[in-house]
Amino acid sequence: MSVFGGELGEDGAHRFPVRVYFEDTDFSTNVYHAAYLKFFERARTEYLRAHGIHHAQMAKDGLAFAVREITVSYDKPAHIDDLLEIETRMAEATGARFVLDQTISLDGMVIARARVVAVLMNERGRPMRLPKALLALLSGS
Amino acid sequence: MSVFGGELGEDGAHRFPVRVYFEDTDFSTNVYHAAYLKFFERARTEYLRAHGIHHAQMAKDGLAFAVREITVSYDKPAHIDDLLEIETRMAEATGARFVLDQTISLDGMVIARARVVAVLMNERGRPMRLPKALLALLSGS
Amino acid sequence: MSVFGGELGEDGAHRFPVRVYFEDTDFSTNVYHAAYLKFFERARTEYLRAHGIHHAQMAKDGLAFAVREITVSYDKPAHIDDLLEIETRMAEATGARFVLDQTISLDGMVIARARVVAVLMNERGRPMRLPKALLALLSGS
Amino acid sequence: MSVFGGELGEDGAHRFPVRVYFEDTDFSTNVYHAAYLKFFERARTEYLRAHGIHHAQMAKDGLAFAVREITVSYDKPAHIDDLLEIETRMAEATGARFVLDQTISLDGMVIARARVVAVLMNERGRPMRLPKALLALLSGS
Repeated sequence: MSVFGGELGEDGAHRFPVRVYFEDTDFSTNVYHAAYLKFFERARTEYLRAHGIHHAQMAKDGLAFAVREITVSYDKPAHIDDLLEIETRMAEATGARFVLDQTISLDGMVIARARVVAVLMNERGRPMRLPKALLALLSGS
Repeated sequence: MSVFGGELGEDGAHRFPVRVYFEDTDFSTNVYHAAYLKFFERARTEYLRAHGIHHAQMAKDGLAFAVREITVSYDKPAHIDDLLEIETRMAEATGARFVLDQTISLDGMVIARARVVAVLMNERGRPMRLPKALLALLSGS
Repeated sequence: MSVFGGELGEDGAHRFPVRVYFEDTDFSTNVYHAAYLKFFERARTEYLRAHGIHHAQMAKDGLAFAVREITVSYDKPAHIDDLLEIETRMAEATGARFVLDQTISLDGMVIARARVVAVLMNERGRPMRLPKALLALLSGS
Repeated sequence: MSVFGGELGEDGAHRFPVRVYFEDTDFSTNVYHAAYLKFFERARTEYLRAHGIHHAQMAKDGLAFAVREITVSYDKPAHIDDLLEIETRMAEATGARFVLDQTISLDGMVIARARVVAVLMNERGRPMRLPKALLALLSGS
């Protein structure tokens, strides 16, 4: 049974269900490669929400996360109607940046993987140190 | 509590939750107007799935639904993090076409409405009569 | 020879070329129905740019156009690699709203049509009267 | 003056103009990070077209290119109305895979970079050796 918005596991990983719709596919009949970035981004948003962090509130505080680098490996294709699971884990969080490892699975098999480097930015687009409370929250300590 | 994939109500309407993500917004800070069509399409797919109809199976049978006309009214904007509810109802189903009425609500208030005229197509792109079993299924009789 | 950004004709219509890419198609092998709204929106943006109106400048002035209602008719499908032409014409412009008629053509044949009702909004999301200069500009008088 | 579809330079690089539209931005007011993958993909399609290779024809021949891995670095943001230039160069082409280096520039400054590993697939989704004629074409020899 898939849980809307996903859920945090006791192992610190967040698991988030995504259904493949028409919009995600292309004429090859596979899921379009850029759609994976949307799935990964939705999962990161839900991962943050599960930790009590909301983009709308951050924007009011003049803060935003920004992706600095992303590497995606496409191992197997996905198709219309597939029910995918996106897993998100914090790999590393230092003063000014953090790294997330994400996978997409279909029927228990990993079909795509991403490594995402993100930073926290202030209103003027300057990178900021992650607040300690946030670091503690995200690193599960 | 939102149910992944939505659910059919006893009144014949299908209700489907959608979370607004980064990908759905534009620089006006509102949800981009074409994103609504994606929400409506996802909801129609889930409406059909709730009736046992799957796009992947239809494609194997050489069948597909195609939108002929869509009218969308935008009453109020939506924003990042909003939890929307898409309601889908069959308005009319005749031999060769059917009409769906859909709404998007935020906190119980309708913020957008769509009327969608769709047809069933065969492999050669020709409109087909809706099979009686399908008509019966969708009209709830 | 297609002109990047399109051009205004002497008949007051704006013609804008769009190439169909992977991102625009879905697993039916046709162009996804919501992609048409993106094509129409790009064409409206270029129509405005051809009249000296830029979204970035409008945003600085606290102004934005918003779509109130859109009706799209899908007559024939489009496919990968197709070179489409979007035609945009002002149908009506009154104090607070304006109506645009748009078509998409392939090889000289109209394959989709849209009627778009838009309004000008100020910073607080309130509809504003179209400035006379803007009205004159857009109505070609 | 931007050329619709871009053009091949004498240095073997392909340069392709992209205008930023509403659809590409998100509520941060910057271009959404997944939109860059669309820009890169459009540019690769035009790069291939400039070499006489068309997706529609390839599909008829039971062939398709598939992205195996992509790394994108985001250096500076882009915004609505920006006119971007995508540059595409073949970095490496071996029997079964090829690597493209792509950049996005704004006003002559590189704002994003991608390295894309792609393979040629047959109808059954199996990687195929690049035909010599294709290799010769793409490597400019």
